Amino acid sequence: MKIKRAGIHLICEFWQIQWINSTKKILKVLKEAAKASDSKVVGESFYEFNPYGFSAIVLLAESHISLHYWPEYNYLAIDIFTCGKTKPYKALEVLKKSFLPKNIQIVEIKRGIK
Amino acid sequence: MKIKRAGIHLICEFWQIQWINSTKKILKVLKEAAKASDSKVVGESFYEFNPYGFSAIVLLAESHISLHYWPEYNYLAIDIFTCGKTKPYKALEVLKKSFLPKNIQIVEIKRGIK
Repeated sequence: MKIKRAGIHLICEFWQIQWINSTKKILKVLKEAAKASDSKVVGESFYEFNPYGFSAIVLLAESHISLHYWPEYNYLAIDIFTCGKTKPYKALEVLKKSFLPKNIQIVEIKRGIK
Repeated sequence: MKIKRAGIHLICEFWQIQWINSTKKILKVLKEAAKASDSKVVGESFYEFNPYGFSAIVLLAESHISLHYWPEYNYLAIDIFTCGKTKPYKALEVLKKSFLPKNIQIVEIKRGIK
């Protein structure tokens, strides 16, 4: 069977973000991002570092969105990996508006190309 | 502050894998992969599709390892994203031995380069 691709994966580097100091708010942002991309959240995981920093993931029926934050560099690593008729760039817009990075780098990777 | 990179992200495409028909076994493989890379599992999520297929993630103190399987293409999308003094290629070896793909594609991305 020939397919064009299975999914789109956006590798996003956010620098100099606006710090969100709340687990609840970060998970809310992730869920809003998933919703904006027309994806369905089916699982979530969050981990907070001491004294600060975090890792957060929402597992989607269409793959995942993850956040890993390094406070020492004010650097947030984001992955938006979605498949089917989803809109990963809509999720990116939500994350941009929420974290307000001063610098960003984005690479789009097509996953599952036969 | 100047840094070389925050982490290594291996984008892995496995094709024609050996099917593992057990949630428990898949999570065990993910945890073995995390351990092999010297990473610490701090969260997990699993989702099974009807009639088959799955998505699975282990959140690590050092980022994450994710699996998304498309049975219709016999295609497994893997992300191994780890930071610090971890060994992501050791995790890849565990996943190769577990899923026995007939074809693979690997791309290494350095994350958080300033």
